[in-house]
Amino acid sequence: MSRPRVAIVVTGSELVRGERTDLNGPFFAQEALRLGLQPSRITIVGDDPADLETALREGMDRDVCLVSGGLGPTHDDRTIELVARVSGRSLEVDEELEREIEAVSRRFAERMKRDYADFSSGVRKQATLPAGALSLGIAGTAPGVVLDMGSCVVVVLPGPPRELQELWPRALASPPLQAVLARTKRPSRRVARLYGVSESLVAKSLADAGGDGDGVEVTICARDFEIHVDLVVEPGVEARADELEAAFLEPIGDFLFGRDERSIEHLVLDACRARGLTLGAAESCTGGLVSKRLTDVAGSSDVFRGSVVAYANETKQGLLGVPAGLLEQHGAVSAEVAESLAHGAREHLGVDVAISVTGVAGPGGGTPEKPVGLVYLHAVGPMGEIPFRIELPGGRDVIRSRAAVAALHLLRRLLS
Amino acid sequence: MSRPRVAIVVTGSELVRGERTDLNGPFFAQEALRLGLQPSRITIVGDDPADLETALREGMDRDVCLVSGGLGPTHDDRTIELVARVSGRSLEVDEELEREIEAVSRRFAERMKRDYADFSSGVRKQATLPAGALSLGIAGTAPGVVLDMGSCVVVVLPGPPRELQELWPRALASPPLQAVLARTKRPSRRVARLYGVSESLVAKSLADAGGDGDGVEVTICARDFEIHVDLVVEPGVEARADELEAAFLEPIGDFLFGRDERSIEHLVLDACRARGLTLGAAESCTGGLVSKRLTDVAGSSDVFRGSVVAYANETKQGLLGVPAGLLEQHGAVSAEVAESLAHGAREHLGVDVAISVTGVAGPGGGTPEKPVGLVYLHAVGPMGEIPFRIELPGGRDVIRSRAAVAALHLLRRLLS
Repeated sequence: MSRPRVAIVVTGSELVRGERTDLNGPFFAQEALRLGLQPSRITIVGDDPADLETALREGMDRDVCLVSGGLGPTHDDRTIELVARVSGRSLEVDEELEREIEAVSRRFAERMKRDYADFSSGVRKQATLPAGALSLGIAGTAPGVVLDMGSCVVVVLPGPPRELQELWPRALASPPLQAVLARTKRPSRRVARLYGVSESLVAKSLADAGGDGDGVEVTICARDFEIHVDLVVEPGVEARADELEAAFLEPIGDFLFGRDERSIEHLVLDACRARGLTLGAAESCTGGLVSKRLTDVAGSSDVFRGSVVAYANETKQGLLGVPAGLLEQHGAVSAEVAESLAHGAREHLGVDVAISVTGVAGPGGGTPEKPVGLVYLHAVGPMGEIPFRIELPGGRDVIRSRAAVAALHLLRRLLS
Repeated sequence: MSRPRVAIVVTGSELVRGERTDLNGPFFAQEALRLGLQPSRITIVGDDPADLETALREGMDRDVCLVSGGLGPTHDDRTIELVARVSGRSLEVDEELEREIEAVSRRFAERMKRDYADFSSGVRKQATLPAGALSLGIAGTAPGVVLDMGSCVVVVLPGPPRELQELWPRALASPPLQAVLARTKRPSRRVARLYGVSESLVAKSLADAGGDGDGVEVTICARDFEIHVDLVVEPGVEARADELEAAFLEPIGDFLFGRDERSIEHLVLDACRARGLTLGAAESCTGGLVSKRLTDVAGSSDVFRGSVVAYANETKQGLLGVPAGLLEQHGAVSAEVAESLAHGAREHLGVDVAISVTGVAGPGGGTPEKPVGLVYLHAVGPMGEIPFRIELPGGRDVIRSRAAVAALHLLRRLLS
């Protein structure tokens, strides 16, 4: 069975100039793959109309063409105009869409104390669609659009990744895209999430188990310092997939922490919630990143009560009760201070479970005894406590991100 | 003067499937821009030969075509074969290159305790180049290649970013690429950063000032809820750029906060540092995001002392001294509590300047009086204080991110 082919066209001059990394191409590609479609090319172009037109013309040669960007109110946002030209459609104002965008723009004009008249031509432009196109409504002020050309279904979504991802489910639910999906069999997907193991060891384990193929496609991907394994299984070969999966995961089972898409912060919050426990943190080198990740999750407030970002020693002492002598004797980056921070967080935040992180994020501040990348963590709760020490490679961003991930995984270990 | 145009072709099935983010396209693009070339498209394709051939054919239509990947020893690495086909060249073994790759491969075989014979056909394949191509030598086992087609200079480099970046300076130094660079002049670049103004108003201001062109290229880009304006100025038209810049920025000058690449968190930290002030935060709905952003900056610890992520009311009371009565009377999301949080942070963290954020990030928790997106901020320091109230559109992530940006900009206002 050959899968419908997908071309992805991303427009944005900052993307083609390499000033920002494109997130929409990979998002579309992963979605296509998940749905049983075949992503075959990603083209990134700037605001040169000829470049965009060529990319669209080639893209619309496939079964599905997913387009992002170029939907703004200004004249150099030409995606809709060029989709219309390539598909041979005229342009028409979608009255309902215009009202939607107008409402948002009027509120914005009010907030900015500007005259709405400054916005009205931009609004009209943004509400103008190729004849026969389907509006998906708006996220921000830009609309999502689906156009069924018969040979190709074109989906156009706004460039800001969050807006694109907000509108994508509506595109998926649209009849033209549903019709394409009906022509393919959606493979089933199984996931395994591992932490604390290298990508190459996971790859070796797969090879030792016989490798993928024959309708079972395995991808191993290091992401956010975890190893994410996806098995994409064609309908009918489930038994082979079961066998491969069992043989493959057996030697690395100790590192397995998840069999679904839930992120580690979700797993930690769910584990607390299930046990009726509240959660707090004391962060030094991660500077709020652990708390930020936990509170990214909607509904986290029933579990997560708060944290202290204790960057300065005075804050560690004043708000978390870390003894000055302990800081003096062992230094802020030490197992002793990590322990004291965690206990202090538990007490001063009044929470059941607390995690602490203290380390040298760099680039400055390293010493031969305490190099950049050295991080101490400590998790404590009614079930006990776990100290943890790691030396992380990489630059400041990587060290901070990895330390935050390590903190979340330490909480999971404590809770399981 | 029109700049030589650059097409970038990236091959890698894990890239077109979105399983890994391409780094080579942005690297090539930034390099091109820096050198006065014009990156005009980035195409990412997998290992389907037809897709790669099409991408190369289009790419080789430009003045420069930069290609990454598909140089491995196996049959599905076809970049060289297809470059030869598209350019109408035959394939020839480069004897010197073969000796280079053989030496590396023999060492590898020895280390792996394998017979070199297993490698020799792969080595020969990797040493086979289009007739007339210039070898740049190897990084890893894959070579870099430059092919001068007259109308187009093709540069082919290995896919692993480190190898590609290692060979790139050799490509740059090659006579064909030097000849292209001699045809262009390196442009200068000016930036303007604005906050609190819409993209469309900035665009209107540019249009009112006469628009870009004539050697001054202006890009307006909404990024992280700010508006980033870049002026790329060809040598010789500086006076025209000065004029345009002045006319363009005059009506929107109130929103201008930066004339260089420093992020808002950098600016806030620098402003505190210049005045010898310490900084802290009290975060509710942003859950640590403001602190995370400030501590993303290396060296922030001399200014930023810490923060309290006061998600629960008990934390607001216990650690920041917000009176229970105030919370009861006005609710946690109120101007009064924002003010009390900021003052509490200043006092309890012992800092000179403090910022607070409290709001409804959603998706739950909204009421008719206090809808999702309502956020109160308060900045306080020795120079005075500023309360701020905003209603933000969007989902949880957007509201939190925008609120954090608003907090940083409120600090900047307080400090300026």
